[in-house]
Amino acid sequence: MKKKKKVNAAILIIGNEILSGRTQDKNIAFLSNWLNLNCGISVLEVRIIPDVEQIIVKNIRFLSKKFNYVFTTGGIGPTHDDITAYSIAKAFKVKYGYHTEAFKILESYYGKEKFNDGRKKMAKMPLIAKLIYNPSSAAPGFITKNVLSLPGVPSILNSMIENCKRYLIKGSKVHSKTINLFTVESNISKQLGTIQKKYKKFVDIGSYPFFRLGKIGVAIVSRSNSIIKLNSVNKEILKLVKSKKIKILKV
Amino acid sequence: MKKKKKVNAAILIIGNEILSGRTQDKNIAFLSNWLNLNCGISVLEVRIIPDVEQIIVKNIRFLSKKFNYVFTTGGIGPTHDDITAYSIAKAFKVKYGYHTEAFKILESYYGKEKFNDGRKKMAKMPLIAKLIYNPSSAAPGFITKNVLSLPGVPSILNSMIENCKRYLIKGSKVHSKTINLFTVESNISKQLGTIQKKYKKFVDIGSYPFFRLGKIGVAIVSRSNSIIKLNSVNKEILKLVKSKKIKILKV
Repeated sequence: MKKKKKVNAAILIIGNEILSGRTQDKNIAFLSNWLNLNCGISVLEVRIIPDVEQIIVKNIRFLSKKFNYVFTTGGIGPTHDDITAYSIAKAFKVKYGYHTEAFKILESYYGKEKFNDGRKKMAKMPLIAKLIYNPSSAAPGFITKNVLSLPGVPSILNSMIENCKRYLIKGSKVHSKTINLFTVESNISKQLGTIQKKYKKFVDIGSYPFFRLGKIGVAIVSRSNSIIKLNSVNKEILKLVKSKKIKILKV
Repeated sequence: MKKKKKVNAAILIIGNEILSGRTQDKNIAFLSNWLNLNCGISVLEVRIIPDVEQIIVKNIRFLSKKFNYVFTTGGIGPTHDDITAYSIAKAFKVKYGYHTEAFKILESYYGKEKFNDGRKKMAKMPLIAKLIYNPSSAAPGFITKNVLSLPGVPSILNSMIENCKRYLIKGSKVHSKTINLFTVESNISKQLGTIQKKYKKFVDIGSYPFFRLGKIGVAIVSRSNSIIKLNSVNKEILKLVKSKKIKILKV
């Protein structure tokens, strides 16, 4: 079997409403999970920035160079604060204007009479962009070079996500195993550190406290591209758990 | 009245579990709201990064120079993947080791017999740090120069937040007004853009679609340091709403 390569991405959340705490973001976890499960793409950095042209331009330039893909969310609607498309065109120094295909889609969706200036704005984007179709509210997302731009409203973003697939090169999926233990981190931290050291190159082991059923616990999450290495780590953790007589929470 | 100055902050979420989508972040919205309401501090950037020393060091250096304060969450527990304290010491090139006060707090909390190596690790931090007391699980957060380090577990972070106040200079609060309208963005985008242009220097107007009671709506959120300017913008928006015969959703 040919070994798949590692493919990565960054997420750039554009929007004052997330930054101010007014709106709780739901797109990061959704995108990250979807990318890993469906495309084997790992999200390695997320940034949340305000609706400010200069800041968007800077971040697009930086992230698009550093990662295989950048996903932007937000700022592609009809109002004055929707400046994502314009800023991306500026970042890549490419032409910005009415995208013929997007214009046609929106005109036929609204009908010529109701296709006002605000709605027309949603057809404006980098002219080199390819469209990401939107089955729920017509206004398309778009991909400019390696930057995929999606709307901020989670239900609309979710409905469009499958249409991103055709533009993405698949990588090797990161598999994960979770063991939930009724213990405290400090009871296992030393031995867990030794296991992590042994498998340093292949497996990432994370340890996350939780509170459930009125008890304190720790979720041990191992992540790896290799199922074989993951199973070895799992065995070692279970051995440690047994030796310490720790109860496992079965979910 | 003396005019208060603008004070800003960045949030640096350190943790593979947020980046992978396994855990839904709850700290960003909480911190951002708390900082604005209680301290008049505006969060201007958020980054989510993995538990990798080199990446933490780079981000601490960059963000601590650019913003008045940096809040980190995560990575200050007893396990091998908790490397925030060490990385911050490295970023500032200051000594890392057992912090006398933190050591005493933890030793008296656990008792000498149960104070094992894992728990002792939580007393290791930059030696120049000052403590942020933790009323719920003892292990303190800490402030190193302008970087405040808090745990990732939301309930513990929330219990510690008041203890950050003594280290923060207050700024001028950002006030906000929201008007929820039963209309679509494109129906008001043009006129709203004109209002925004007029108040460009003083007020930020954002427009956010919502779905409620089976209907589509738009939340118009205006934000400003000046209540007077905010009221003027509000009046202009209500005039626009009236002229268009748009229904307001009273919440």
